[in-house]
Amino acid sequence: MTLLTDLYQITMAYSYWKTGMAEREAVFHLFFRKKPFDGGYAIACGLDLAIDYIQNFGFDDSDLDYLKTLNGNDGKPLFDLGFIEYLKNLEFSCTIDAVPEGTPVFENEPMLRVQGPLLQAQLIETPLLNIINFQTLVATKSARVCQAAGKAPVMEFGLRRAQGFDGGMAASRAAFIGGCATTSNVLAGKLMGIPVSGTHAHSWVMSFDSESEAFEKYAAAMENNCTLLVDTYDTRQGIANAIAVGKALKARGKKLMGIRIDSGDLAYLSQLGRTMLDNAGLHDTKIILSNDIDEYILESLHDQHAKMDLLGIGTKLVTAYDQPALGGVYKLSALKNKKGEWESKIKLSEQTIKINIPGIQQVRRFYHNGLMITDMIYDIELGVHDDPTIVDPNDPTKTKSIRTEHLFSEDLLVPIFENGKKVYQSPELADIRERVFKELEKLHTGIKRFVNPHVYVVGLEQRLYEKRLRLILEQRNLIS
Amino acid sequence: MTLLTDLYQITMAYSYWKTGMAEREAVFHLFFRKKPFDGGYAIACGLDLAIDYIQNFGFDDSDLDYLKTLNGNDGKPLFDLGFIEYLKNLEFSCTIDAVPEGTPVFENEPMLRVQGPLLQAQLIETPLLNIINFQTLVATKSARVCQAAGKAPVMEFGLRRAQGFDGGMAASRAAFIGGCATTSNVLAGKLMGIPVSGTHAHSWVMSFDSESEAFEKYAAAMENNCTLLVDTYDTRQGIANAIAVGKALKARGKKLMGIRIDSGDLAYLSQLGRTMLDNAGLHDTKIILSNDIDEYILESLHDQHAKMDLLGIGTKLVTAYDQPALGGVYKLSALKNKKGEWESKIKLSEQTIKINIPGIQQVRRFYHNGLMITDMIYDIELGVHDDPTIVDPNDPTKTKSIRTEHLFSEDLLVPIFENGKKVYQSPELADIRERVFKELEKLHTGIKRFVNPHVYVVGLEQRLYEKRLRLILEQRNLIS
Repeated sequence: MTLLTDLYQITMAYSYWKTGMAEREAVFHLFFRKKPFDGGYAIACGLDLAIDYIQNFGFDDSDLDYLKTLNGNDGKPLFDLGFIEYLKNLEFSCTIDAVPEGTPVFENEPMLRVQGPLLQAQLIETPLLNIINFQTLVATKSARVCQAAGKAPVMEFGLRRAQGFDGGMAASRAAFIGGCATTSNVLAGKLMGIPVSGTHAHSWVMSFDSESEAFEKYAAAMENNCTLLVDTYDTRQGIANAIAVGKALKARGKKLMGIRIDSGDLAYLSQLGRTMLDNAGLHDTKIILSNDIDEYILESLHDQHAKMDLLGIGTKLVTAYDQPALGGVYKLSALKNKKGEWESKIKLSEQTIKINIPGIQQVRRFYHNGLMITDMIYDIELGVHDDPTIVDPNDPTKTKSIRTEHLFSEDLLVPIFENGKKVYQSPELADIRERVFKELEKLHTGIKRFVNPHVYVVGLEQRLYEKRLRLILEQRNLIS
Repeated sequence: MTLLTDLYQITMAYSYWKTGMAEREAVFHLFFRKKPFDGGYAIACGLDLAIDYIQNFGFDDSDLDYLKTLNGNDGKPLFDLGFIEYLKNLEFSCTIDAVPEGTPVFENEPMLRVQGPLLQAQLIETPLLNIINFQTLVATKSARVCQAAGKAPVMEFGLRRAQGFDGGMAASRAAFIGGCATTSNVLAGKLMGIPVSGTHAHSWVMSFDSESEAFEKYAAAMENNCTLLVDTYDTRQGIANAIAVGKALKARGKKLMGIRIDSGDLAYLSQLGRTMLDNAGLHDTKIILSNDIDEYILESLHDQHAKMDLLGIGTKLVTAYDQPALGGVYKLSALKNKKGEWESKIKLSEQTIKINIPGIQQVRRFYHNGLMITDMIYDIELGVHDDPTIVDPNDPTKTKSIRTEHLFSEDLLVPIFENGKKVYQSPELADIRERVFKELEKLHTGIKRFVNPHVYVVGLEQRLYEKRLRLILEQRNLIS
C-alpha cells in the first residue's frame, strides 16, 4: 500500500534525493486547526492503523515498475533509475511519538510527531492523514452520538451508506472506539472482534402473505435473537402483531428481544410501543429506534420523552454527515541544517490560523481534581518553566499562568517507533473504547455541550510563542 | 469479502433457509429517491466494482468458522450447522440487469435489478448499496465540478481527506469517470490506469533557506515536470521567484509548466499571476488553483474572471462534502408464490415518497433531436402501449402522453449476469468517462443548472401506476 500516496510525495522524495537532502533529519507534526462539528473536543483515533501501515511500508517490484512508467512532459522518465534503486532499498527508520487512541485532543496540538529522514517523513504524509483524519472524525462523532444516547446502547449500521468498503470497515472501528456497542458489519466482527448485531429488513415482512405470518416465521427461526421491525405497513398494527408473537414466545419460555421502529414520529410511536408492550406484560421487550438519527435528533427525542432502549445509527455516523472530513494537516516544523543543528520552520499565510507552530513539540495536559483544565504545547528543545505561562497562539492578549503545585500533569505524546522499530504495545480495541469513556469523564460538561461548547484552553508555552512570533516577523521582513 | 454485509442479511438468509424459502425467486431493485446535491441528475457509477464483488461472492472456511461463533441471547449458536453447510455450497445464480456506468439517472429509476433466489438476492444488498451509492455520489459530484470548471482540467487530489483507504481509491475511480483529468493517488494510477499528477508541498519550500533556492532546486530535479507552489510565504513574491526560475528554464530550452496558488484571494491572485507571467513572456506557464474548491466556488471564480488553466480539487470532491451519502435503497418488488406465479410487493410508509414501486421494472428513455426528454419506468410483465401515458408517482395530476413516432428510445437496463454467469463486457474506465461527456451533452442545459435545476420528467407507465395504486389501497385496507 506504499503507493497509496500523492504523486507529489514521490516527486518531492525524488527531488530531495537529487538534491542530496533525502536523509536530512526533519520533524513533522500532524494536527487539526478546528475541532469537528463545532464541538468542544475531538477523540484521537487511528494510531493502530497507522502503525500497521508503517510496519508494511516499502516499495515492491510492481510498485517500482509502475513508477518507471511515469514520464514528464518531454516523454522522458520522471525518475532516474538510481532513485528507483534507492526506494527499493528504503527501510523505514523514523521515530514517531503519538497521542494514544481514545484521548481527547484539541486544535493545534500535535496528535503525531514524526522525526527522521526528510524523504521518509514526507512520503508517509498522505496515508497518515488519510487514516488519522477519518478515524478521529468518526470516533468523535460516535462519542457525541453515544453521549446523546445516554444509557441506550448504539448499534452502528452504516455500511450501506459508507464511503467505499474501507469507509465502512474503518468507520465500524472508529464508531466502536467512540462508544458504539455493536456494528452490523459482519466483516468488522470477524476481523476486529467488534460485537455484531442486527434485526431484519422490510423485505422479510414483504416476502410473506401477512405481517403476522412474517413475524411468526422469523421468531421460529430466530427464537434466541428475535427483534421485529414493525413499520413495514402500519406501525401501530405492526406493534400489535409483534406483541402477539411476543406473547407466544413468552408462553414457550422464550423472549421477544425487541421491536424496531424505523420511520414516522419516533417519539410518539416509541411511547405508544412502550405502553402497548407494557400492557401486554412484555416489559422486557426493548424498543429500538432508527432513521437518520444523530446527536441533535437524540437530544430532541429525549426532550420529548421518547422511549428508547437501543438505537440503530448509520449514515449520519459513518459518514460524519454534517462534516464529512476533518481538516487535519501534516506540517514540517524543524529541519537539521548542514551543521547538524535544528532549525525551526515556519510557513506564512494571509490567514493567521494557517501559520504553523515551529519546533519539536510535546503537549502537557494539566488536571485539577481529576478534570482536565489546560493543555500546553511546548518545544522540547526550549523546555518548560516550573510555573509556565501559556499564550493563545491566535490572540496574544489571552495568557494564563499555570501554578503547577497542586496540579497533576502528563505529556500526551508517547513513543511509538524509535528509529523505525516499534516500541509501543497497542491496546485492544475494547480497551481503547473504555479509555474514551474514562477520558470524557475528565472533561467539564460544558466542553461536551453540542451548542456553543465551552472552549478548552490550549496555549503555547511562552518561549515557544515568542519563538513563533520572531520567526513570523523575520520571514515577513524577508518579503518586503 | 462476502462477510462485508450487515448481520441482518445473514439472519434473514438463515430464516429464509429455515422457512424453506431460500430459493423462492425474487426481484429487487436498487434506486435512489432524491437526486444528490439538489441537482438535476445523477451519474450511474460503480457497476464494474459490483461485478467484481459478485464474481468473488462466496463464503470461505474462515467466514463460516466466524459465523459458527455467533450466539443468541441464550448462549446457543445463532445458526444451525446445516445452514453453514448450505452457505459453504452456495454458488451465485442470480440474473442482474443494470444501467451502464456513466449514464445519467434520476429518482425512482432502478439502476440495478436483481432476480434470483431470495436468499442470494438478499445477501448482496449491503455491498451493492455500499458500492453503487458512493460511486454514483462521487461521479455525480465530479461531473458537476468538471462542468463548472469548463475548459480547465480538474486534478483530483483528495486522498488525505478521503474516508479510509478505499474511500480514497473508490473516490479516485468515480472522480475520473465523472470527468477529472488526473488523480494524485499513485495507487489508483497503478491499479486502475488513471493518469497521475502532482506538484510539491509547502514543506519543500520550507526545507530550504529561501524560496528562490527551493524553486531552483525543484526545477533542477523536475526539469520535465515542474510546477511551483507560490504561496508558502507571500504569493506575489512567490510568483516573482517562480518567474525567475521559469526564465532560467526557458533559457535552457525547458519550460516552467505552471504555478499553483493554494490560498488567499484566488480570483485576484490568479489575475496578478497571469499578468506577471505574461509580462515575463511566460505565456505557456499555466495557473493552477486549489483550496477547498467546489462547483459553486468555480462559478464565482468564473464570474470574477479568475485566470485558471488547471484546478486541484480534493476534500469537497472525494467526500461529496455537501452531501456525503446518497440514500440509495434496495427494495423487494416481486416474489414468486408457491405456484410459481409472480406477486408484486409493496411496502407502505407514512411518507408517500418511501412507498416502493412494485413489479419487474425496466426504464425506457425517450429522445427528441438528440436530447433526452422523458424516462418511463414500466413493468416488464405488463408491457407498454405504443403511445404510452406516464404518471408522476407522487402526483397523479401530472401525466404525459408520449407520441413515440418521432422519438428515439432505448431501454436503460442491460443484461449483466444471467443465472450467475457474467454476460457483460465492462468498458474501460476511459470509455466510461467519455460516455459521461457524451451523455451529458444530451441533457438540456436547464437540468444541469446548479440552482433550482429544471426537473427531468420520470413517470410510471400508466398500468404500472395503476397497479401500484391498487396494491397500496389493498394493503391499507388490510390494516384498518
